[in-house]
Amino acid sequence: MRKIIVDCDPGHDDAFALMLAWGNPTVDLIGVTTVAGNQSISKVTRNALSVAGVCGITGVPFARGLHRPLVRPPGTAASVHGDSGLDGPVLPEPALELDGRHAVDLIIDLVMTHPPGSVTLVPTGPLSNIATAAVKEPAIVSRVHEVVLMGGAIRGGNRTPVAEFNIAVDPEAASIVFQQPWKVTMVGLDVTHTALATPEVCARIEELGTVPSRFFGEVLRFFTQAYLNDQGFAAPPVHDPCAVAYVIDPSLLTVRAAPVDVELHGRLTTGMTVVDMRGEAPPGCTTHVATGIDVARFWDLVLDALRRIG
Amino acid sequence: MRKIIVDCDPGHDDAFALMLAWGNPTVDLIGVTTVAGNQSISKVTRNALSVAGVCGITGVPFARGLHRPLVRPPGTAASVHGDSGLDGPVLPEPALELDGRHAVDLIIDLVMTHPPGSVTLVPTGPLSNIATAAVKEPAIVSRVHEVVLMGGAIRGGNRTPVAEFNIAVDPEAASIVFQQPWKVTMVGLDVTHTALATPEVCARIEELGTVPSRFFGEVLRFFTQAYLNDQGFAAPPVHDPCAVAYVIDPSLLTVRAAPVDVELHGRLTTGMTVVDMRGEAPPGCTTHVATGIDVARFWDLVLDALRRIG
Amino acid sequence: MRKIIVDCDPGHDDAFALMLAWGNPTVDLIGVTTVAGNQSISKVTRNALSVAGVCGITGVPFARGLHRPLVRPPGTAASVHGDSGLDGPVLPEPALELDGRHAVDLIIDLVMTHPPGSVTLVPTGPLSNIATAAVKEPAIVSRVHEVVLMGGAIRGGNRTPVAEFNIAVDPEAASIVFQQPWKVTMVGLDVTHTALATPEVCARIEELGTVPSRFFGEVLRFFTQAYLNDQGFAAPPVHDPCAVAYVIDPSLLTVRAAPVDVELHGRLTTGMTVVDMRGEAPPGCTTHVATGIDVARFWDLVLDALRRIG
Amino acid sequence: MRKIIVDCDPGHDDAFALMLAWGNPTVDLIGVTTVAGNQSISKVTRNALSVAGVCGITGVPFARGLHRPLVRPPGTAASVHGDSGLDGPVLPEPALELDGRHAVDLIIDLVMTHPPGSVTLVPTGPLSNIATAAVKEPAIVSRVHEVVLMGGAIRGGNRTPVAEFNIAVDPEAASIVFQQPWKVTMVGLDVTHTALATPEVCARIEELGTVPSRFFGEVLRFFTQAYLNDQGFAAPPVHDPCAVAYVIDPSLLTVRAAPVDVELHGRLTTGMTVVDMRGEAPPGCTTHVATGIDVARFWDLVLDALRRIG
Repeated sequence: MRKIIVDCDPGHDDAFALMLAWGNPTVDLIGVTTVAGNQSISKVTRNALSVAGVCGITGVPFARGLHRPLVRPPGTAASVHGDSGLDGPVLPEPALELDGRHAVDLIIDLVMTHPPGSVTLVPTGPLSNIATAAVKEPAIVSRVHEVVLMGGAIRGGNRTPVAEFNIAVDPEAASIVFQQPWKVTMVGLDVTHTALATPEVCARIEELGTVPSRFFGEVLRFFTQAYLNDQGFAAPPVHDPCAVAYVIDPSLLTVRAAPVDVELHGRLTTGMTVVDMRGEAPPGCTTHVATGIDVARFWDLVLDALRRIG
Repeated sequence: MRKIIVDCDPGHDDAFALMLAWGNPTVDLIGVTTVAGNQSISKVTRNALSVAGVCGITGVPFARGLHRPLVRPPGTAASVHGDSGLDGPVLPEPALELDGRHAVDLIIDLVMTHPPGSVTLVPTGPLSNIATAAVKEPAIVSRVHEVVLMGGAIRGGNRTPVAEFNIAVDPEAASIVFQQPWKVTMVGLDVTHTALATPEVCARIEELGTVPSRFFGEVLRFFTQAYLNDQGFAAPPVHDPCAVAYVIDPSLLTVRAAPVDVELHGRLTTGMTVVDMRGEAPPGCTTHVATGIDVARFWDLVLDALRRIG
Repeated sequence: MRKIIVDCDPGHDDAFALMLAWGNPTVDLIGVTTVAGNQSISKVTRNALSVAGVCGITGVPFARGLHRPLVRPPGTAASVHGDSGLDGPVLPEPALELDGRHAVDLIIDLVMTHPPGSVTLVPTGPLSNIATAAVKEPAIVSRVHEVVLMGGAIRGGNRTPVAEFNIAVDPEAASIVFQQPWKVTMVGLDVTHTALATPEVCARIEELGTVPSRFFGEVLRFFTQAYLNDQGFAAPPVHDPCAVAYVIDPSLLTVRAAPVDVELHGRLTTGMTVVDMRGEAPPGCTTHVATGIDVARFWDLVLDALRRIG
Repeated sequence: MRKIIVDCDPGHDDAFALMLAWGNPTVDLIGVTTVAGNQSISKVTRNALSVAGVCGITGVPFARGLHRPLVRPPGTAASVHGDSGLDGPVLPEPALELDGRHAVDLIIDLVMTHPPGSVTLVPTGPLSNIATAAVKEPAIVSRVHEVVLMGGAIRGGNRTPVAEFNIAVDPEAASIVFQQPWKVTMVGLDVTHTALATPEVCARIEELGTVPSRFFGEVLRFFTQAYLNDQGFAAPPVHDPCAVAYVIDPSLLTVRAAPVDVELHGRLTTGMTVVDMRGEAPPGCTTHVATGIDVARFWDLVLDALRRIG
């Protein structure tokens, strides 16, 4: 069974990612780490612990990570996630205690103490923790099975006309992650902008009638309104669980190898993932990009996990 | 009748642009200027005069323009246009004499001596001449009816993963052109990569059986092979006449307003046209982008012009 | 006798440069061109003509040049030159008529019609005209004897911590000028910040008691106050005539060959002249930098010219 | 007594810095950390331990740090430090054991467990460890007394015409360090290029006749030759102990407040410390730059320490 560490900044869609990673029986969630992104590190860490409570996550270490991007000033996404980073539902008091270790060290410890090739990293926020772990302990790079990240885009952006939020907030960290010789799969806006929580999806979630389903229903209610107001989406894209879904069932997404690099120096393009789609990837290319997702089966997977944690 | 100046670097597809601009009866070709791009200024100027001979263009001033981009070292596209810039057909000796003026001055003179709002500029090469004209004589900016250029892309590139050749070769010039307060319509790769000279198109051209049609058939024969070898296209995209076609019949292309700016400082993205497609363009936006073309009607238009010059 | 074209943006110190170029009997001022810089092109052109009147310049074509930098938005230096660009003295109505040609074309015409190697260009403003001339007519590059420019610095800046005004305002133009294979001598802040108009210098000028000396005395009175207020100088540096002085008598300045390039892409350093002083210049290095000036003899030269035009 | 942590990449001058920090009785060396720079992390760590042996350093934790800069590919200085990073003397086998902690964690632990305001960081290599520590545990920033670093320059460079090696190798790390609200004093090339190990200095060292003095004499013999060959210096600048000397006796150096920032995006200037020397520093400026050093007293201090460890 695939072991995964989710590195996140909950975040409405991060909450879904955590729920899917815990509720799905075919992956083993061995750690959760937080990183400043959608909101400050304090807020997203509290949110992660609250979501853990809602989902009944136990026996999994949660560790707090970097409070800022490596080089640049922090940037948050309050316009779609609210002041708390997870506005909408009432957030239960966290029951879980944080692990004493720093997120960077928890990632390193988990990768180094599990068998080589057994751990997949699933970052769904800025890549600050992951990059720092790889720089601090380079031995993790060859031990990790794969990095499957939500972030970037082959075409277009949301933070800027051409850059996606997670990459734009810490482009230097993203650059480090894409440059390491591990396998990286980028699940970007090209895919996640099709994974929409339509009214039908929302209805299916609320119909479950469980405490978690009510919570996630409220999460979506806020998210729907925020995405409509902020970006004009009729239904909100639920980005982060797409990366988890790919780990669970790679057949859900269409993925191809392609060179990916991150622009760090543009005036208009900093934080853009530059993907070369002009031909086949060169031999040995370790970076991959998702180009499509089976949206119906994706939501089935999410619903199934939500039912199981109920 | 719309008066147009074609500023070009022939170039196989530039040859089609010239032919269409001359052969179509609804636009008035009042000047042709050349610019270093697909090949050196000497070669593309010679090619322009040769094409004028093939097409029977008379009474139109041809002027030689800048031998290099404004700031950067020159770059050519020999891999798709050959050593002459128009490899394939036998190029007839130019009959036409060059105008004594520099291209930059011819553009300025034509715009300043025709009525305000009557002249459309149609650049199909790097924008070095156009930018220099606008900087040297700013009065042309409000007198020009519109700039309809072949170049750039909303998504993707050919010179680099994200930059199109004409913009990438002289990004500073492109930046100047997009920043002027005239109306600019960008006909980029998004459109031109669909305007393919398929075997059917080539057959229709050769079936005309005229001297010019034989010439353009040979142009396409070389171009087909070069694009296959260089970029893996089964049929070559014939970029430049798409811009001329838009001037002739705007209903052929789908065009929308959108902010466009050119990246000048990226490590990976210099020469990229950064187009903000995330919502409606702000009021007063003067830049426009083509998103689609009616390919069948486009080729009908080209064939019609070719028949007329026959 | 060395023929010189002064390309300027008067400007208090530009006024001295024009006066020195006209008043000194060992150089032949064959043209004056203006460029937007210290103030708008209209203002600096008017100022140049006024200074011509004060100095009695006749028989020299004056031409108006570029109204803006090549690529970037305009920037002026009103804080040291005032709203008119030459605040302080009463500016006489210009008597001289402007040449009908554009400055860029006047420069090209003068260089192409005088014998090869006979004309020295002396730019004392942003290099927009000079760069455009070299791009428009590359044949001037090998015909010019030398370019001696006021601008840049080996160390330090005034517009920014590390960039001098003339280069910072149009760095792309400067980059073009330094890259051409002509000999360029940069007379920068390292030198001009020592060419101070001390009270003693001002007294010597006013003691001449001529109409021009009164004019230039008033120029310095304003400039002294402006430099004190704006940059804390006890006595103002009179930059531009240092370049003219070098053409008149190279023994006045200490000059060495050194590679010079202009930063176009920094966040903090754009417009900086990057000079490699770490060792001897490589063979064939065409760029030179002034490192010192004999200030006493420089002022003697200026006073002598002022006396002669009296 | 001031407590200091030396973060270094020995390195010939780093060896002097360690010796001075240990041999001088008025500072308390509480930790030594290594960082990739002059050579790979393995080599510089081995060298640090060897120098500890030569100097008789005991009771001080030594920890190995980052093997690479944060974002950019590694760069070494083999041309002046040789293949081992400390070519010249025979390097004794290290007796000291490395601390088990990562350098980043040792720095954090030492700062957090000593009283606030008691620990001074003295980096003499690239700032990768220091930056990572500040990003991982932001609480250290207000607890550190001061950062006194060898690196950068007000004017000129050695790695490039305008960038010093330590900053150029990891400019992002340097940018982070200069941006933190702790007091940073930059001891750069402006100072260290005057702290030359002249033949007289070398003679005084060798005359001590101790085992360590023989070792450091050999260090200088290699360094003298390497600096002559590589950069044309008649006597080598001994950079790193200048920073330690400033901590020991601030009266040895002339220091002023001035804004310092690091260029990360230039084509020619990346890694340059941009220092604004144009006027007084603004209130609250936390960055300082050294502009001079009393070279005679500096060498007396170094000789004194060398005598004491003898």
